[in-house]
Amino acid sequence: MADAALLEFFENQHPARNYLIVHTATEFTSVCPMTGQPDFATMIVRYVADKKCVELKSLKLYFQSYRSDGIFYEDITNRILDELVSGCSPHWMQVESRWTVRGGIHTVVYAEHGRPEWLPSGGLPSGVSAALGGGCCG
Amino acid sequence: MADAALLEFFENQHPARNYLIVHTATEFTSVCPMTGQPDFATMIVRYVADKKCVELKSLKLYFQSYRSDGIFYEDITNRILDELVSGCSPHWMQVESRWTVRGGIHTVVYAEHGRPEWLPSGGLPSGVSAALGGGCCG
Amino acid sequence: MADAALLEFFENQHPARNYLIVHTATEFTSVCPMTGQPDFATMIVRYVADKKCVELKSLKLYFQSYRSDGIFYEDITNRILDELVSGCSPHWMQVESRWTVRGGIHTVVYAEHGRPEWLPSGGLPSGVSAALGGGCCG
Amino acid sequence: MADAALLEFFENQHPARNYLIVHTATEFTSVCPMTGQPDFATMIVRYVADKKCVELKSLKLYFQSYRSDGIFYEDITNRILDELVSGCSPHWMQVESRWTVRGGIHTVVYAEHGRPEWLPSGGLPSGVSAALGGGCCG
Amino acid sequence: MADAALLEFFENQHPARNYLIVHTATEFTSVCPMTGQPDFATMIVRYVADKKCVELKSLKLYFQSYRSDGIFYEDITNRILDELVSGCSPHWMQVESRWTVRGGIHTVVYAEHGRPEWLPSGGLPSGVSAALGGGCCG
Amino acid sequence: MADAALLEFFENQHPARNYLIVHTATEFTSVCPMTGQPDFATMIVRYVADKKCVELKSLKLYFQSYRSDGIFYEDITNRILDELVSGCSPHWMQVESRWTVRGGIHTVVYAEHGRPEWLPSGGLPSGVSAALGGGCCG
Amino acid sequence: MADAALLEFFENQHPARNYLIVHTATEFTSVCPMTGQPDFATMIVRYVADKKCVELKSLKLYFQSYRSDGIFYEDITNRILDELVSGCSPHWMQVESRWTVRGGIHTVVYAEHGRPEWLPSGGLPSGVSAALGGGCCG
Amino acid sequence: MADAALLEFFENQHPARNYLIVHTATEFTSVCPMTGQPDFATMIVRYVADKKCVELKSLKLYFQSYRSDGIFYEDITNRILDELVSGCSPHWMQVESRWTVRGGIHTVVYAEHGRPEWLPSGGLPSGVSAALGGGCCG
Amino acid sequence: MADAALLEFFENQHPARNYLIVHTATEFTSVCPMTGQPDFATMIVRYVADKKCVELKSLKLYFQSYRSDGIFYEDITNRILDELVSGCSPHWMQVESRWTVRGGIHTVVYAEHGRPEWLPSGGLPSGVSAALGGGCCG
Amino acid sequence: MADAALLEFFENQHPARNYLIVHTATEFTSVCPMTGQPDFATMIVRYVADKKCVELKSLKLYFQSYRSDGIFYEDITNRILDELVSGCSPHWMQVESRWTVRGGIHTVVYAEHGRPEWLPSGGLPSGVSAALGGGCCG
Repeated sequence: MADAALLEFFENQHPARNYLIVHTATEFTSVCPMTGQPDFATMIVRYVADKKCVELKSLKLYFQSYRSDGIFYEDITNRILDELVSGCSPHWMQVESRWTVRGGIHTVVYAEHGRPEWLPSGGLPSGVSAALGGGCCG
Repeated sequence: MADAALLEFFENQHPARNYLIVHTATEFTSVCPMTGQPDFATMIVRYVADKKCVELKSLKLYFQSYRSDGIFYEDITNRILDELVSGCSPHWMQVESRWTVRGGIHTVVYAEHGRPEWLPSGGLPSGVSAALGGGCCG
Repeated sequence: MADAALLEFFENQHPARNYLIVHTATEFTSVCPMTGQPDFATMIVRYVADKKCVELKSLKLYFQSYRSDGIFYEDITNRILDELVSGCSPHWMQVESRWTVRGGIHTVVYAEHGRPEWLPSGGLPSGVSAALGGGCCG
Repeated sequence: MADAALLEFFENQHPARNYLIVHTATEFTSVCPMTGQPDFATMIVRYVADKKCVELKSLKLYFQSYRSDGIFYEDITNRILDELVSGCSPHWMQVESRWTVRGGIHTVVYAEHGRPEWLPSGGLPSGVSAALGGGCCG
Repeated sequence: MADAALLEFFENQHPARNYLIVHTATEFTSVCPMTGQPDFATMIVRYVADKKCVELKSLKLYFQSYRSDGIFYEDITNRILDELVSGCSPHWMQVESRWTVRGGIHTVVYAEHGRPEWLPSGGLPSGVSAALGGGCCG
Repeated sequence: MADAALLEFFENQHPARNYLIVHTATEFTSVCPMTGQPDFATMIVRYVADKKCVELKSLKLYFQSYRSDGIFYEDITNRILDELVSGCSPHWMQVESRWTVRGGIHTVVYAEHGRPEWLPSGGLPSGVSAALGGGCCG
Repeated sequence: MADAALLEFFENQHPARNYLIVHTATEFTSVCPMTGQPDFATMIVRYVADKKCVELKSLKLYFQSYRSDGIFYEDITNRILDELVSGCSPHWMQVESRWTVRGGIHTVVYAEHGRPEWLPSGGLPSGVSAALGGGCCG
Repeated sequence: MADAALLEFFENQHPARNYLIVHTATEFTSVCPMTGQPDFATMIVRYVADKKCVELKSLKLYFQSYRSDGIFYEDITNRILDELVSGCSPHWMQVESRWTVRGGIHTVVYAEHGRPEWLPSGGLPSGVSAALGGGCCG
Repeated sequence: MADAALLEFFENQHPARNYLIVHTATEFTSVCPMTGQPDFATMIVRYVADKKCVELKSLKLYFQSYRSDGIFYEDITNRILDELVSGCSPHWMQVESRWTVRGGIHTVVYAEHGRPEWLPSGGLPSGVSAALGGGCCG
Repeated sequence: MADAALLEFFENQHPARNYLIVHTATEFTSVCPMTGQPDFATMIVRYVADKKCVELKSLKLYFQSYRSDGIFYEDITNRILDELVSGCSPHWMQVESRWTVRGGIHTVVYAEHGRPEWLPSGGLPSGVSAALGGGCCG
């Protein structure tokens, strides 16, 4: 069962600089709450840390803990954002989930916390999403 | 015959956050009102929900209901936008239709409802359209 | 000989909404005025209609009418823009011509009419040009 | 030896419109001033003409005239910009040079003259650089 | 051991123009401080020089000097930025590190120094990151 | 309803040469016999004609006649092959159907009539299938 | 737990013709027997049926039944082949599993049953594997 | 009007070696004999010369001479093969024409003269067709 | 220092079937014996096991042990093949090394042990190399 | 001036094994003997060594020595093959030259020395040419 307690954080060694960190997890899977069938997604976390950074291995284990949970696309994206924000209080964070095709329809959900003014150059660098999200599986 | 009554909506579980949802349907087909020949499109719906979200399976069935209708590219795009807006009153919504080649010409139509200020970070994230619309078939 | 009289227009059924229409013609050919050799281009028309829309088949025939004309890249792009604007008085229109390689150089010309404020979301959607212009001949 | 006198210009037939012209030359070669080894680049010229346009064949010959010159990446990009600006006084011009890999490092240099306000829609169209610069050697 | 003393700089020959230089090093490797396993990254340096430019061969040697160092993704990116800024005091500089997949997660870190107003056209050209960061390795 | 009588054939003008003809129809749609949901495929016909060739427009109309038929992937591929062979008695023919994803599974069916010795160079040219079938949608 | 009893088969309607069927399942997941961590693969089944064909939905459910099993790459590929062969006795069958990266290494396993003489044109059509296996994730 | 007299040939300087020459012309256009509408193709000539080679510029002019001719896909491919064979008597030659989409169908025709035994390594090198024919216009 | 003792093997659970295993390691690095500069390669191992299979984690560690060794491209490829063959006596094995660009030249080396008759279907499946080796950097 | 004396060879350390070596030089340039204009090519050398291997740096310098020579595509390919064969007497060698577009035509020339039986697995590995020659420019 999804467990936010799996998340670990470490101290941001460069808190004076607002820099951007992007983690793209291509092996996310959960279960459809309607049909019980497995769902598959690429889960992208982008953030500007304040005092804490997300520890990479704990993030992997946290994502794996969703493997048997039945939960909607829109809900899971917001829930991951809430739990990460709760754990590390970033200046800004965006969670993007890209789901594989169901019934000929491909879905993507973006949820965001904080003001984009915290981003370097005052905005999400052009090409961040495009470069990471390329390819046909979206 | 296209039937907006097929659309179902569910309650947005995170109404306090303005987050973006994108559905890309690659198997849309209708009929040309001039020639009676079938037309094929990729239909993309992007929106920021207010109180309701579009239910994915009902969206598939709604799109399928256009299979035998004769209707112009420009009209169908606006009509889908009107019917979805009517059903869920989103803060912002964009419908994009990408049609296969006819006479060596490839057509895309974008129609939009509401103010982009509702989008996370105050605008359509860079790369959303590019990432989803890649490939040669538009 | 290029003949703007070939262009036909139909009434915009959604004049209250500023939506974007994009036509990409991949089979454009004319003749170099210097050498008499054939030139080849992809011709892209993007516009926000006011009262009239360009009829797709007539656009194809209009483009075909350039097949034997000798005319420069820069000139042809502006001329097509002028003739389309003259015919349908759009709120905003952009013509982009992408020419095949000559002497190891690949040329693209963009010409625009009207204010981008007419575009949905107040600007050309990110990725419009990239998505349509992809590929090596771009 | 690089010779700006090779450049020829012709009268801009549409001076009242600020439109964008892009020339991409994929066969540029010069010589490294340190090692005497050949260097290879794609040279991209983007501009908004005032009264004169760059003649395409003369541009090819001008670029070829660098074939035996020993000159640094940063310097050559600025020099080409200076000589083109000197010849046609454009409202706005950008020269981008993309060099092949040396020591596992790939370098790109962008130099610009004039204010981007001259560009159509008040800025470089989204996707211009991406569409032209695609591919991994870009 | 990583050694900033390896970095060499040369005089910027065009200090009056704010132009953009981008170096992409695809063969960066260091060691994970936790596991001792090697890490691999593409390291991208984008900057607007003031009086000095980074010498390309010295940059290669500087990057190679990280080969045996154990250091975190977030830290290494900021450290490289600090050392380059210290050496050449650029108007603006961005360091982007793109790391190969670990545990199904792909990480990118962006750190930036200075104001983007120094960039040509008042911002990072659209497509710069997308064009350079393309391909499946991020 | 699928109707082989729609197929027309014309006289092969080069019967003395065994040459290969390939038609790729990207807009094929039929209906799943189990669920009544629409199916979508790319249908590829490769053949070496004897006395007759398939007329292209009639092939389009014949494929369109499957639009409302409920029929399995394996059956439809063999049936199209049977009906085309019956109509033009080719030396060799292959029908390949590439279906869009259902339940996370993408299916392709290949059926063949006649001996490959009839093919030019005694076999299917290397790359024919690869070149035509490229892309992720199969 | 993996359960071959989930597999269903239907009667091959064209047993007199040796035609090729290819199913590509992109959402396969199991568990590493060493670490307990999830593994992800694309599983491809290619076969020439004798009297029975694999029913597509049952194949999906059969693949899903591996979701919690701990099993090696080499073993799982051979086991799937054994169970499918046991159920439908095909003339020829190949199972290919393409696994996501672990420790910087990407693994593919191919196992085959029967003689390739059963394949149409006496061999696996050139491009079958290439066309289906494209993209960087194998 | 198509005119084989435009073709020029030069003496093969290496007649003792059976080597392969491939010319790919991406700017071929003719006219549909049924509708009078322009057709567009990529025309590929592959051959093993005997005593004569095709002169490249004359090949371009010969292809251009088809610009106003009304002729079927299958016929034009065989005719070009006949006229080239007549002019240079190659050991082996293949002409491949790849036509743009008409009615949602994309057509390719391959015609061949002579025995493939003349090819280096006794066959068309693996990848020749695939490498040249890549991309979506194929 | 490269150490074959790091390699571990496990018992092949399906010795009666000649199936193909492919491991692609994208993070290989060694040192140039001439210049002392680091070299980078993708190392591909394809084999048909007899009684033993290569254990994946030990293969990773074995490849990492080359990190500080100075050794030529041709030599390293053959040496890895020799050491793997020595450890598991496969029926057939191929080692392919793809090196990053040096001096504008990209090098690949293929070395093979045993007879290809051991391969399934009597040869290396069409597309194996192409599918794995895609992309321009080899 | 092209100078075969620049070529250096080193002793093949594994003469008992027939393994394949492939060098791809993407920065080849010479001059057109008709027009004096520069030509650009990718030059690929594939071979099975006997007693000697081609030294990589000397190959680069040898290719650079063609920079000012006027020579035809067909001739240069055979000449490079002759000079390399003369220097190292390989069991088998193939030279492939891929030239940039001239007059809308892209040319490739393949020349070969020796019997393909020397190749590992008795032939050029499937995908060698495709993998190296990918991309639209051949």
